[in-house]
Amino acid sequence: VTDRSAPRAGVATTGGASLELGRVAIVGAGQAGTMLGLALRGVAAEVALFDRNPVAAEASLRRKAGDRTIPSLDRVAEADVVVLAVPVPEIVKLLDQLAGVLRDGTFVVDTGSAKAAVVEAMGRLPAAVHAIGGHPMAGTERAGAEGAEPLALRGATFVLTPVREDPVALRLASILAEAVGSRPVVMDAKVHDRLVARTSHLPHLLAFALAAVTARAGAPDEVAALASTGLEGATRLARSDPAMVAGFLRANADEVRAAAADLSEAVDEVLAALGGDGLEDLLAKGRSAVERLR
Amino acid sequence: VTDRSAPRAGVATTGGASLELGRVAIVGAGQAGTMLGLALRGVAAEVALFDRNPVAAEASLRRKAGDRTIPSLDRVAEADVVVLAVPVPEIVKLLDQLAGVLRDGTFVVDTGSAKAAVVEAMGRLPAAVHAIGGHPMAGTERAGAEGAEPLALRGATFVLTPVREDPVALRLASILAEAVGSRPVVMDAKVHDRLVARTSHLPHLLAFALAAVTARAGAPDEVAALASTGLEGATRLARSDPAMVAGFLRANADEVRAAAADLSEAVDEVLAALGGDGLEDLLAKGRSAVERLR
Repeated sequence: VTDRSAPRAGVATTGGASLELGRVAIVGAGQAGTMLGLALRGVAAEVALFDRNPVAAEASLRRKAGDRTIPSLDRVAEADVVVLAVPVPEIVKLLDQLAGVLRDGTFVVDTGSAKAAVVEAMGRLPAAVHAIGGHPMAGTERAGAEGAEPLALRGATFVLTPVREDPVALRLASILAEAVGSRPVVMDAKVHDRLVARTSHLPHLLAFALAAVTARAGAPDEVAALASTGLEGATRLARSDPAMVAGFLRANADEVRAAAADLSEAVDEVLAALGGDGLEDLLAKGRSAVERLR
Repeated sequence: VTDRSAPRAGVATTGGASLELGRVAIVGAGQAGTMLGLALRGVAAEVALFDRNPVAAEASLRRKAGDRTIPSLDRVAEADVVVLAVPVPEIVKLLDQLAGVLRDGTFVVDTGSAKAAVVEAMGRLPAAVHAIGGHPMAGTERAGAEGAEPLALRGATFVLTPVREDPVALRLASILAEAVGSRPVVMDAKVHDRLVARTSHLPHLLAFALAAVTARAGAPDEVAALASTGLEGATRLARSDPAMVAGFLRANADEVRAAAADLSEAVDEVLAALGGDGLEDLLAKGRSAVERLR
């Protein structure tokens, strides 16, 4: 049992969350797993870390994201709460691997940024396992334990995408989201994937594409001389881990394609307005849309 | 003659810049004109402000961007240095209006972000007027005098696009650029327009288009819940003044269209790679390109 007498600064301590959450196993000790481990330590009864790469698990432990590491995947089943914090394609594989070993009553949640495939795989778990899709909307561009910033969870949206009618899963997921300082928002997995394709995956794709366009635009020193702070902001997401971005773009490929088509249409609207009087109004609409996002 | 005994903090004082630059008239007291006025006061012998909108000129004067306002456009011709800091289409009109009134030896520079049309219009000035295109790569999203941040000029690129063989224009432009703390970079106007279409105008266009796509993606509260800090960065440029953005998109329309076609190609490359193994490599290339921009 962990010492809760001195809660660490910056971490929300929900009354009773320790008892409710019990022993947590985090699978995947990268940025997301480390961020959640840091936020859950002192809140859950125990946080244990598993990563296929033992070096990554040790790095996360050194950042104090867990009380200990877990030596093998099957031992994850000893936990009361299993958090899958790996790229989306691996989450789906892990769920199929864990289906036979998870104990009745175990609560399972993930952190993937595409949810339809995850929720479908969760639907193949025994009904006695309480599973729900999760997407904490917090992170940095820096891969691995070093990139984890648990304070980013404070006030962030933590999307929950139900698998089936399961009040226990929903309650535990809400407790976990609130325990790390986030705001649980329940949403259908397909609606989530449609929205996040446009609010997150498309911006990532555009940042990488824009970086490629500028790199091809001219001599590197001339391009660098004309690189404004505006460009720096517009391409910031292209500093993200390529493996992570590839993971969610592939997992949400259909919606990503649809979002890119929407963007192409919006760009064409602006280009069509270049010769006319409506350009300012069209841009003013875009500005209003951005102001509403705050 | 201005008091140079107490140079203001944050403003570079090039030896002799006061004598060299003489009396400066800034036409257009918006964000760019106010920024340059703030940076040039105490460096030039005098800074006077003209704006067709007297309220804007007064607002700029209140920010201390000039020593006085100029009551009418024709009085601009009394200055030794004329800085045209209005949207690009107006710069071209102003140059044609001023062609008959500017005195021999006057130095003319502008701040527009598209240069081919400006340089062409400058070519119609008498040869005894020393004109050169200028583009200080510094600014904020906030329109008007209130948005001016003279410190943004420190270390920024100040592109100079020559009109004709004119060593006087080039020397005075370099003195002015360095006097405000920027780095003069001489470049052909067409090369500038090609590059800036990709490093600045396209990112602006994409920010507005992305804002429109997210606004149409779903219910406003759901979209807002899924708006990440990544999206905030990616759409930051859509907070810019629509009139300013419309001005440079129109002035550089051909290159903006070509840049949008380049982007569409780069997006399609990523989409085509979604089903294959090359996606990570393609994204890693984009990341390298961004890292080279620093």
